[in-house]
Amino acid sequence: MSAVLKNDLLLRALLREPTPRRPIWLMRQAGRYLPEYRATRARAGNFLAMCMNPEIACEVTLQPIDRYPLDAAILFSDILTIPHAMNLGLEFETGEGPRFAHPVRSAADIEKLPVPDPGRELKYVIDAVALIRRELDGRVPLIGFAGSPWTVATYMVEGGGSKAFAKIKRMMYEAPRDLHRLLAKLAQATTLYLNAQIAAGAQAVMVFDTWGGALTPAQYEEFSLRYMAEIVGALTREASGRTVPRIVFTKGGGAWLAKTAAIGCDAVGVDWTTDLSSARKMVRDTVALQGNLDPAALFAPPDTLRVEAIKVLDGFGSGPGHVFNLGHGITPEVDPERVAVLVETVRSYRLA
Amino acid sequence: MSAVLKNDLLLRALLREPTPRRPIWLMRQAGRYLPEYRATRARAGNFLAMCMNPEIACEVTLQPIDRYPLDAAILFSDILTIPHAMNLGLEFETGEGPRFAHPVRSAADIEKLPVPDPGRELKYVIDAVALIRRELDGRVPLIGFAGSPWTVATYMVEGGGSKAFAKIKRMMYEAPRDLHRLLAKLAQATTLYLNAQIAAGAQAVMVFDTWGGALTPAQYEEFSLRYMAEIVGALTREASGRTVPRIVFTKGGGAWLAKTAAIGCDAVGVDWTTDLSSARKMVRDTVALQGNLDPAALFAPPDTLRVEAIKVLDGFGSGPGHVFNLGHGITPEVDPERVAVLVETVRSYRLA
Repeated sequence: MSAVLKNDLLLRALLREPTPRRPIWLMRQAGRYLPEYRATRARAGNFLAMCMNPEIACEVTLQPIDRYPLDAAILFSDILTIPHAMNLGLEFETGEGPRFAHPVRSAADIEKLPVPDPGRELKYVIDAVALIRRELDGRVPLIGFAGSPWTVATYMVEGGGSKAFAKIKRMMYEAPRDLHRLLAKLAQATTLYLNAQIAAGAQAVMVFDTWGGALTPAQYEEFSLRYMAEIVGALTREASGRTVPRIVFTKGGGAWLAKTAAIGCDAVGVDWTTDLSSARKMVRDTVALQGNLDPAALFAPPDTLRVEAIKVLDGFGSGPGHVFNLGHGITPEVDPERVAVLVETVRSYRLA
Repeated sequence: MSAVLKNDLLLRALLREPTPRRPIWLMRQAGRYLPEYRATRARAGNFLAMCMNPEIACEVTLQPIDRYPLDAAILFSDILTIPHAMNLGLEFETGEGPRFAHPVRSAADIEKLPVPDPGRELKYVIDAVALIRRELDGRVPLIGFAGSPWTVATYMVEGGGSKAFAKIKRMMYEAPRDLHRLLAKLAQATTLYLNAQIAAGAQAVMVFDTWGGALTPAQYEEFSLRYMAEIVGALTREASGRTVPRIVFTKGGGAWLAKTAAIGCDAVGVDWTTDLSSARKMVRDTVALQGNLDPAALFAPPDTLRVEAIKVLDGFGSGPGHVFNLGHGITPEVDPERVAVLVETVRSYRLA
């Protein structure tokens, strides 16, 4: 069914196998900084409509791959597809971020949440994965993804984005069993979802724990890491005869990298607030590392940008197991020419 | 002039001197969770008007002291008083946070910024300090404060609150000398400001680096810590025959506590994402620690709240040098009765 994979640098680096150079992809590489993305979005109407249309999701996923010599494509989608499929009434208000019409507030709300069948309620995502694989034609591997149960739950309980997480933290302290029930359901749904992405052609998967860093160390283990471990342990390990690497990324989780690395994942994402040299010491080369240029470095003049990228590359040091990335997603104000400079810098880097 | 200080637990703990019990105060203890605060605010009109009226600032500072047996008062004010005095046109829109009508964007903008004379443009703060000291009548010490140069600069350059800090980070990468000039000016203004607070009666001072955690480790040292070190090194060391302890708090700076502790401050604030036992190992008892209960624990039922507070107290362990606090400010939705439970728990704690 699938074309031979012509560039497998990402898959090898994620499994800590030697590669002739460091692979690079960028979080939110398909995004608003690209004029072709903005054109597609204007045509599609809104963000959710783009996610829900496999042809558009595919088109947008391929835009950065067509423009830059990146080493991976990542599915264009959102971490809130699962609660959307749980009928919480997701809307993306312009400039406002996501909103749920029916937030989850009680044990009864949690009990009645369905676990979506990825082949039905999330079919648009699975169809997008298959279509992207076909269109990629083996150029680079495709990364599938989902939000972590904790992170997705914050939006479901708060009813949208939050800064203080007052509602979900109140639930955590007042009714921890209810929250565990919600997280367990999300872990189950996420496992099914990621395995369906793998079955449809995702060659690596990533779990985004955007808000794990809002927790205490003990809460992180109990309410976030535990459920990511459940998911990672239940993922399909091989597809088409190749191992499917699993990446876990907790933003703001720099102090906990050793714990994150120990859940059985192959690679850990690192944000820009931790140096890769420290990160590598913490995980003791048990997993690959992915990251971690400050996304704002893309505002720097080209020469400074090159210096900053090389600091990250040098910081990791020698040996296999580094996938170059930003420490967080590309911001919309970035000049696409700077991204070209960054990709070229990483591609031409060889450790002295 | 001043009454004898009847409760000096805070000052002693901040200097790592033995105390019969752990002192406690709470960030944003004078705030919207208190009905008496909301009543004063309704009368005063808006937040900035409250800060600028010494009688009201005094009244609000004393409200939590009158209600709870806390061990310190903290000046009611804002970290943006300095840029306000630099004529940037500060406004607090309801529910929107601070906005500057004239943000700082260029070298010329920075060059023309005046360094405010605390006795003139910030006289309302200095008058408030003196009035609060008089009204406190030696019950507990008064903490003065300011924002860190980096944190204050983020608001000045972004024009208000931010999530990605795109504008100031662009300045950092494109024109680092301009940013250094801005930070140096802020460090100078902040030193004058804190020394004026000390001269007027502040018995300890705290520098709030709310956004230092948005930086890389190298940027934190170059753009935030360096200027806090400048300030700390230039503060008046004694007032009325007592040492004036200096507290530095970088939110999200858990990984850098050893570096923060080394700038010559007496105490370091710790947010809830780092356990105090780890924090203490990092700073090797060279400074006192202040923190660090998850502010959301105040939503917990009283029994759970007690357990959580005791975990923090036990986590620090034995020996002097712990000031109990939250890891961040109290959220407005908190029930004042829970704060009473917390204060009582900490006051009655004795290490086994």
